[in-house]
Amino acid sequence: MLPRIVVAGNGQLGQMLQQAGAPMQLKVMPVEPNQDIEVALHADDVITVEVEHWPDTVTGLQLKNHPNFRNASALHAVIDRQRQKSLLDQLQVPTAPWVDLDSEASLTEKLESLGERAVVKRRRGGYDGRGQWRWQRGDEVEAEWAETCIAEAMIPFSHEVSLVGARNAKGEKVFYPLTRNWHENGILRASVAGLDVPQEQQDSAEEWLSRIMDDQNYIGVMAMECFVVDGKLLVNELAPRVHNSGHWTQEGATISQFELHLRALAELPLIKPEIKGVSVMYNLLGRTWKTEWLGIDGVHVHWYGKSLRPGRKVGHVNINRPTLAQLEESLKALKELVDDEDRIAFDWSLEQL
Amino acid sequence: MLPRIVVAGNGQLGQMLQQAGAPMQLKVMPVEPNQDIEVALHADDVITVEVEHWPDTVTGLQLKNHPNFRNASALHAVIDRQRQKSLLDQLQVPTAPWVDLDSEASLTEKLESLGERAVVKRRRGGYDGRGQWRWQRGDEVEAEWAETCIAEAMIPFSHEVSLVGARNAKGEKVFYPLTRNWHENGILRASVAGLDVPQEQQDSAEEWLSRIMDDQNYIGVMAMECFVVDGKLLVNELAPRVHNSGHWTQEGATISQFELHLRALAELPLIKPEIKGVSVMYNLLGRTWKTEWLGIDGVHVHWYGKSLRPGRKVGHVNINRPTLAQLEESLKALKELVDDEDRIAFDWSLEQL
Ligand SMILES: Nc1ncnc2c1ncn2[C@@H]1O[C@H](COP(=O)(O)OP(=O)(O)OP(=O)(O)O)[C@@H](O)[C@H]1O
Ligand SMILES: Nc1ncnc2c1ncn2[C@@H]1O[C@H](COP(=O)(O)OP(=O)(O)OP(=O)(O)O)[C@@H](O)[C@H]1O
Ligand SMILES: [Mg+2]
Ligand SMILES: [Mg+2]
Ligand SMILES: [Mg+2]
Ligand SMILES: [Mg+2]
Repeated sequence: MLPRIVVAGNGQLGQMLQQAGAPMQLKVMPVEPNQDIEVALHADDVITVEVEHWPDTVTGLQLKNHPNFRNASALHAVIDRQRQKSLLDQLQVPTAPWVDLDSEASLTEKLESLGERAVVKRRRGGYDGRGQWRWQRGDEVEAEWAETCIAEAMIPFSHEVSLVGARNAKGEKVFYPLTRNWHENGILRASVAGLDVPQEQQDSAEEWLSRIMDDQNYIGVMAMECFVVDGKLLVNELAPRVHNSGHWTQEGATISQFELHLRALAELPLIKPEIKGVSVMYNLLGRTWKTEWLGIDGVHVHWYGKSLRPGRKVGHVNINRPTLAQLEESLKALKELVDDEDRIAFDWSLEQL
Repeated sequence: MLPRIVVAGNGQLGQMLQQAGAPMQLKVMPVEPNQDIEVALHADDVITVEVEHWPDTVTGLQLKNHPNFRNASALHAVIDRQRQKSLLDQLQVPTAPWVDLDSEASLTEKLESLGERAVVKRRRGGYDGRGQWRWQRGDEVEAEWAETCIAEAMIPFSHEVSLVGARNAKGEKVFYPLTRNWHENGILRASVAGLDVPQEQQDSAEEWLSRIMDDQNYIGVMAMECFVVDGKLLVNELAPRVHNSGHWTQEGATISQFELHLRALAELPLIKPEIKGVSVMYNLLGRTWKTEWLGIDGVHVHWYGKSLRPGRKVGHVNINRPTLAQLEESLKALKELVDDEDRIAFDWSLEQL
């Protein structure tokens, strides 16, 4: 009855998609694309991704060439920042001013055209802030930036938010409310969701993400990261997949982003998830968890089963409570039990409430 | 860090325990006990059950003889109705009047001692109302009842409820609110939870189940089925495991009965689950589900992946909504989409709200 969903990639996102499908026996099979093995795919499998690109290996090509490989066009547009920013411009979606660092000769000039400070980003392969450089007027430029990078004006944002939404083959779309995110050194530390969001921001964000998904005939969940400047949104970047800033939906919404993605892919009804209370998501970066945490109301630990390396995303914790006051109580209690270095994520979260 | 939980039995309960453990990488391994295979158990595995008894096969004995096999005493007390009823009497837990049908000679006399009508129940192996006979004064008795059955007075209950609770090794206990259940021909058709429950009933039920679990040094989730007669509870029977009448907790509580059972077994903190809105659980008995159901707010399908046979429990549907009015709305919408024969379960549920 239901197709099998095959996920290119072998990390936590595929694992959580698998967990979301299990109750209704919707089978999800993560496949590592970076290997030269012929995997057993069925003609009616539907192929989705948790990583944005992979080499042309035997498995990698098998996945890409499957007739039900979804969102090839969106992946093509997004995996190269030059193409992604051009798409945003073309669809008139406001985004940070940018330049293509195409020739070595004009590097300084191009960077200076963006103002006093810029963020240089590798066009391909960056994530969690890797492959980025902060530049300011007077700094040396690096020759290797030419042809491999774009640069963006440094945006003096008050905070960052993201919109997670889904679209199905019929063009129906649903969205979660904007989530507030805190990145440190380019890596997501914590998110807060379920707070009041200015309607105008929500509406613009939904309108833009709709425009993008419709343009790409997109099927599944897409995330759009934004900067908030003077109460207005500017798009930072797109993620054509389930997204870390949507992990709170596992306990904070009636339908999680993982189930929503599966529903869109399997042509199951797409309905607007109801939001349950207020949530904080806190990333475990190179740290284990402690069983005492489960003694606090509303705490849910998601552990990816990966080996520990400094700074590596190895899990996340969702804290979901019916009211703000209760969430505050749980956050304060949990803050006392986490590693010293992580208290700052709780301070940030508490400030947002 | 966490022990592996091995479940004796190979049905939906083990599967749902597995799903509950997945987010935190608490591994749950269901094992079919009725086979003569040496399975690879670890010394620090913790063994629990989803079935109450099994033959002395190679696997069956391996499970029973494992040093971390939990609740042997409670299983011993519960698998034979004669012992179970004696335990309830001994602990002064009110239960339906009963007799042991020990000798063929006194069958009629014993049945008549219970009043006009009785329910004859096989001491061992019955579930979903199998191995039961309704008897009334004047009916023939069957010789085979002697020594294999007990009989209970037929209780003129107004409705049935159940209490699901958990106890850990430290003796800490937590409970869900009483769930209202509707059985037809001895098999659970639907449950309603999250409604107001008379405090007196909740208190007695918790007190009795505490007494039972403490007496047995029980670890994990136990369910206690009760009749309500004139607003007072009488215990029907015990289930030393997660229970069908607790399935609503998957979406209707912050911690499901499956997670609670795992927490107790793995010595993780046991905290009182918070209840989310109101819930109805509706069993799929020999019927498939329709994808349109997922188009209704609050509907969650749990499908067990079993082959279809008439009347067989092959799945359940949880309907969870924040308010009574919203639950009513979802139930009415879903009622229009289910098989004609199942509408009655919705009529019953709607009457309870
Ligand atoms: N133009 C900018 N101005 C100011 N801050 C920026 C800018 N671009 C990026 N940042 C900061 O760096 C973070 C990471 O940038 P970006 O999202 O481009 O990186 P990434 O490596 O693709 O991250 P992800 O893991 O989300 O894919 C942003 O969330 C923001 O905090
Ligand atoms: N003494 C009784 N008086 C009236 N009704 C009874 C009595 N005993 C059982 N019933 C009815 O039959 C149903 C099934 O009985 P019981 O719970 O003993 O059976 P079971 O086969 O063990 O069921 P389960 O699947 O719950 O283990 C009860 O829920 C109740 O509706
Ligand atoms: Mg990125
Ligand atoms: Mg980003
Ligand atoms: Mg029983
Ligand atoms: Mg019963």
